[in-house]
Amino acid sequence: MFVCTGYAAQSADTPLAPFSFNRRDPGPTDVEIEILYCGVCHSDLHTARGEWPGTVYPNIPGHEIVGRVRRVGADVKSFKVGDLAGVGCLVDSCRTCANCVEGLEQYCLVGATGTYNAPDKHTGGVTYGGYSKAVVVDEAFVLRLPENLDLAAVAPLLCAGITTYSPLRHWKAGPGKTVGVVGLGGLGHMAVKLARAMGAEVVMFTTSESKRADAERLGAHHVVVTRDPEALKAWGGKLDLIIDAVSAEHDINAYLVLLKRDGTLVQVGAPPAPLPVHVSNLIFGRRSFAGSLIGGIPETQEMLDFCGKHGITADIEMIPIDKINEAYDRMLKSDVKYRFVIDMATLPAAA
Amino acid sequence: MFVCTGYAAQSADTPLAPFSFNRRDPGPTDVEIEILYCGVCHSDLHTARGEWPGTVYPNIPGHEIVGRVRRVGADVKSFKVGDLAGVGCLVDSCRTCANCVEGLEQYCLVGATGTYNAPDKHTGGVTYGGYSKAVVVDEAFVLRLPENLDLAAVAPLLCAGITTYSPLRHWKAGPGKTVGVVGLGGLGHMAVKLARAMGAEVVMFTTSESKRADAERLGAHHVVVTRDPEALKAWGGKLDLIIDAVSAEHDINAYLVLLKRDGTLVQVGAPPAPLPVHVSNLIFGRRSFAGSLIGGIPETQEMLDFCGKHGITADIEMIPIDKINEAYDRMLKSDVKYRFVIDMATLPAAA
Repeated sequence: MFVCTGYAAQSADTPLAPFSFNRRDPGPTDVEIEILYCGVCHSDLHTARGEWPGTVYPNIPGHEIVGRVRRVGADVKSFKVGDLAGVGCLVDSCRTCANCVEGLEQYCLVGATGTYNAPDKHTGGVTYGGYSKAVVVDEAFVLRLPENLDLAAVAPLLCAGITTYSPLRHWKAGPGKTVGVVGLGGLGHMAVKLARAMGAEVVMFTTSESKRADAERLGAHHVVVTRDPEALKAWGGKLDLIIDAVSAEHDINAYLVLLKRDGTLVQVGAPPAPLPVHVSNLIFGRRSFAGSLIGGIPETQEMLDFCGKHGITADIEMIPIDKINEAYDRMLKSDVKYRFVIDMATLPAAA
Repeated sequence: MFVCTGYAAQSADTPLAPFSFNRRDPGPTDVEIEILYCGVCHSDLHTARGEWPGTVYPNIPGHEIVGRVRRVGADVKSFKVGDLAGVGCLVDSCRTCANCVEGLEQYCLVGATGTYNAPDKHTGGVTYGGYSKAVVVDEAFVLRLPENLDLAAVAPLLCAGITTYSPLRHWKAGPGKTVGVVGLGGLGHMAVKLARAMGAEVVMFTTSESKRADAERLGAHHVVVTRDPEALKAWGGKLDLIIDAVSAEHDINAYLVLLKRDGTLVQVGAPPAPLPVHVSNLIFGRRSFAGSLIGGIPETQEMLDFCGKHGITADIEMIPIDKINEAYDRMLKSDVKYRFVIDMATLPAAA
């Protein structure tokens, strides 16, 4: 064990604050990573503030982790001290179920181990995330990072990147396909960049005229301001795939009718209330309404390699860790373009 | 033109009654069919009683039509006088759009021509359906019928059969796949028979213990009475595909969680109100909620050939045409096993 520092929520209604805790020393197949940057995901906020059931306090969020390897176990093959390394939403899974064997650990039938607030089989407590100085993870769940990208801006690829990359690949975005993206936030801005790089025609749907220029800069071929019903209607039956990154309640039917025959709308944001679906919008056109959860480890590696090759990172705003509570409040107002990343050098050496 | 007799609704609230009208004489590519039997679909009732917008009166329903060819146009190649012939839900389409060219006329981008209550490009009025002595249809929309089956029991294949066959094929029901069927009515009983014949493991979900023996007789390997939440739960994550034939409001979420990863629930019944979908049920497992509409002409022929080969027909109750209004009332109480078919010999020679 070694003492590690981090930022933790002690309860649902107290701000995150410095906190010391124990990490395990690396076992034979573990990699110990000094965390340099950690992205800030909306899930962090939901968990820290107890908005989802089951938060165990103290809670240390963070699952968009990048840094450098500083210790490795004796049997580690893929990493050596000094390598760049990343950790996303998962740090373990059963590794033997049908889904794990296919490399789809996010759908582990036993239940994958989340990077934070999940039962920790090593300590008997819960896992602690990336708002901390270091993390120890089995090498099977550690990602190699491209050397040619801005490291801080790579961090959000580990969640926002893979969450959009995976459905784009699964539903075959690429040349000749028209892909809609709904909602220009952390997930949406990655969906636009990735779909564009895959060769698809990209249509950004946003509620706000003010986001038009930005959407175009990010790679959208077309921008549709959804407050104008006629502008929306013009895209009826024209899209092969829609990535819907809106996690608030919204009218899904307005988007389902934009799909071609056999088109799919994939929800990657998770609205808390059920969404009413007019079945006729599915029947006429054999359309599908689907969901997708992050991605497995092999596909996350593929995504990182793809981003390295295409020079893709997230658009970020760097913050010192003592601004995390303020950042949460700004996220609630969508006041971020498009992902906060914590500079872990700002974490105090001891809590 | 020739005078034809049929049964028509003159308004939303009058019973169907004998009616005389004109049919076109067959043009060069037309087939004139003497109708021997016509199945009774719930859509007939919705249309005749004005429950869907847009019914033009007088309305002659019926789109599960079987009979014998009695005249053919000069250029007709596929049929000769005396042949068995069938007509389903469609009598025409644009034939040139991308969907028509693929043989998916049901999704014609211009709008396919329904067998009844659709604009009739020959007469300028609306199309009249199969509750009548004869029908004249372009041979491109006429189906060949297997000779080895009970003809009356073939009629419902033209709508109930293809509506379930098409999604079973599209989503690849077959050996090694577990297929759930929700709702044991006209569509559901066909889904069970067809999925079984395709080699799938079939699980019937019904609200009523009294339907268990019947579901097993129709071919279900397992029957789950859905009033028992534990019985339902036991199937969590075990189905590749669900065909949901319930057209009333029902809890779709209880079925979505029964799907495996990448499983699809296909709605073929169309509940009038939107169905609330918990997005998390889609995200965890990359599941899809889809819809499917009848089938195209090539696939309808494939389905009929398949039924001929496997000896599959609908379970029917034959009625004389003067019992049609009573049959509608019984359908509303689900009091039919599982499809009414009108014996057209009972139609008066003149109205």
